[in-house]
Amino acid sequence: MTPGIIHGVGLGPGAQDLMSVRADRLVRGARHIAFFRKAGRSGQARRIVDGMLRADATEFAMEYPVTTEIATTDPSYNAHLSGFYADCARHLAKLSEAGEDVVVLCEGDPFFYGSFMHLHSRLTGIVPVRVVPGMTGMSGAWTATDTPITWGDDVLTVLTATLPEADLVRRIRDTDALVVMKIGRHLDKLRRAVAAAGREEGAWLVEHAAMPDQRVTRLCDADRVAPYFSILLIHGQGRRP
Amino acid sequence: MTPGIIHGVGLGPGAQDLMSVRADRLVRGARHIAFFRKAGRSGQARRIVDGMLRADATEFAMEYPVTTEIATTDPSYNAHLSGFYADCARHLAKLSEAGEDVVVLCEGDPFFYGSFMHLHSRLTGIVPVRVVPGMTGMSGAWTATDTPITWGDDVLTVLTATLPEADLVRRIRDTDALVVMKIGRHLDKLRRAVAAAGREEGAWLVEHAAMPDQRVTRLCDADRVAPYFSILLIHGQGRRP
Ligand SMILES: C[S@@+](CC[C@H](N)C(=O)[O-])C[C@H]1O[C@@H](n2cnc3c(N)ncnc32)[C@H](O)[C@@H]1O
Ligand SMILES: C[S@@+](CC[C@H](N)C(=O)[O-])C[C@H]1O[C@@H](n2cnc3c(N)ncnc32)[C@H](O)[C@@H]1O
Repeated sequence: MTPGIIHGVGLGPGAQDLMSVRADRLVRGARHIAFFRKAGRSGQARRIVDGMLRADATEFAMEYPVTTEIATTDPSYNAHLSGFYADCARHLAKLSEAGEDVVVLCEGDPFFYGSFMHLHSRLTGIVPVRVVPGMTGMSGAWTATDTPITWGDDVLTVLTATLPEADLVRRIRDTDALVVMKIGRHLDKLRRAVAAAGREEGAWLVEHAAMPDQRVTRLCDADRVAPYFSILLIHGQGRRP
Repeated sequence: MTPGIIHGVGLGPGAQDLMSVRADRLVRGARHIAFFRKAGRSGQARRIVDGMLRADATEFAMEYPVTTEIATTDPSYNAHLSGFYADCARHLAKLSEAGEDVVVLCEGDPFFYGSFMHLHSRLTGIVPVRVVPGMTGMSGAWTATDTPITWGDDVLTVLTATLPEADLVRRIRDTDALVVMKIGRHLDKLRRAVAAAGREEGAWLVEHAAMPDQRVTRLCDADRVAPYFSILLIHGQGRRP
């Protein structure tokens, strides 16, 4: 029996037609799909492919056991997640061993802060795994602002808002262009860090880039809370003939 | 007469099927396409769409007047390029005013160190301009290494090898994950900077990511010269349950 291939497929920032042609073909042809989601939610990756799946496709929803209930610094956070990823990997490996290909749906690009990476590291060397890169959420975000992110020899720094405030300040001060991911409940801290770095003027918040409810606001006009899918941007101002 | 739309269309890193579905449709339907290239070369953007164009498509090749002959610090470099971009923008504006849509082919993502940005800034407010984001070359590059670029709260720094050596050293030392673009004849300087930052061990050079001649080597095993399409990577080692 030839083992099936586990495909980690980048779906891009959200609009169905921003998926690559390769991803589009794999998703439409898949007999088995798998995707992560928060318990009780439909899941953004799954939502992107609504209406594209075969009628006989089997769906495997991988529901995170913890999200914000346990602090990421608590050792039991890692233990919980680790067991969860191991279970998911085992299920996918079984499908592969039964000769079935599986398409694992990934938001944006799978290898850029993606959950699929935790399956990839567990499955590599055991069953065939292949990754289809995707358009990142940040490409969707800066395109939503209709402004280039980097010119000439601009330095671009990509941060997550989960970093300590002092680190955020230091790094935001010391870059030409900036992308901040994973904002959510860290928005207040991020706001303070941007202000302390003296960069409030050029800071933009993009919510749900390339999704139907896309929203672009200056950071100073943004709400007190940011949704999970939001990115902060400061555009580079480099050399432009 | 309704003015035509100038579409800046991201083509992704190189493989035709890594283009977005939206880009694929625009390219196949275009009556007018435009693309940058070096004088005497066929042009990478044009090569990506080989075999996809309508038989009656009109092609407008925009040939850079200067590339490496004049130093980027020489004031005449900017003057030359500025006049060139103005001429190209004028030609596209005329097509738009005649009611014609134009697809401008862009490598990777148009707003990420792209030449189209220089047309976008000149055409915005004059004729309708629309950007289709693309998969970046760096997504193609880290996927080629089959290794995720960022985990947990890794910091990613994106640099161009055109920066002074001391800046490269300082920034390469101070990041978790690294991407360096625009390497070409700066490879020797970059190599010294990576070594001075103590990061040679984990440094990879990816040439022609997602193209037929894709090549992945450790930096220490790389040739003395790097092609135009090459990217240096250091993968993040962040939190992974
Ligand atoms: C776990 S990371 C996954 C990133 C994804 N692999 C990518 O390539 O963009 C989740 C974070 O990505 C960002 N993100 C991804 N897609 C987005 C979108 N369409 N709009 C806004 N933010 C997005 C948000 O900052 C979110 O907190
Ligand atoms: C003018 S920049 C354009 C970047 C492009 N807009 C993007 O999104 O990747 C040109 C640089 O991009 C990088 N690059 C783009 N595509 C690449 C690929 N497929 N393989 C290797 N390098 C690539 C190289 O470093 C090259 O010097």
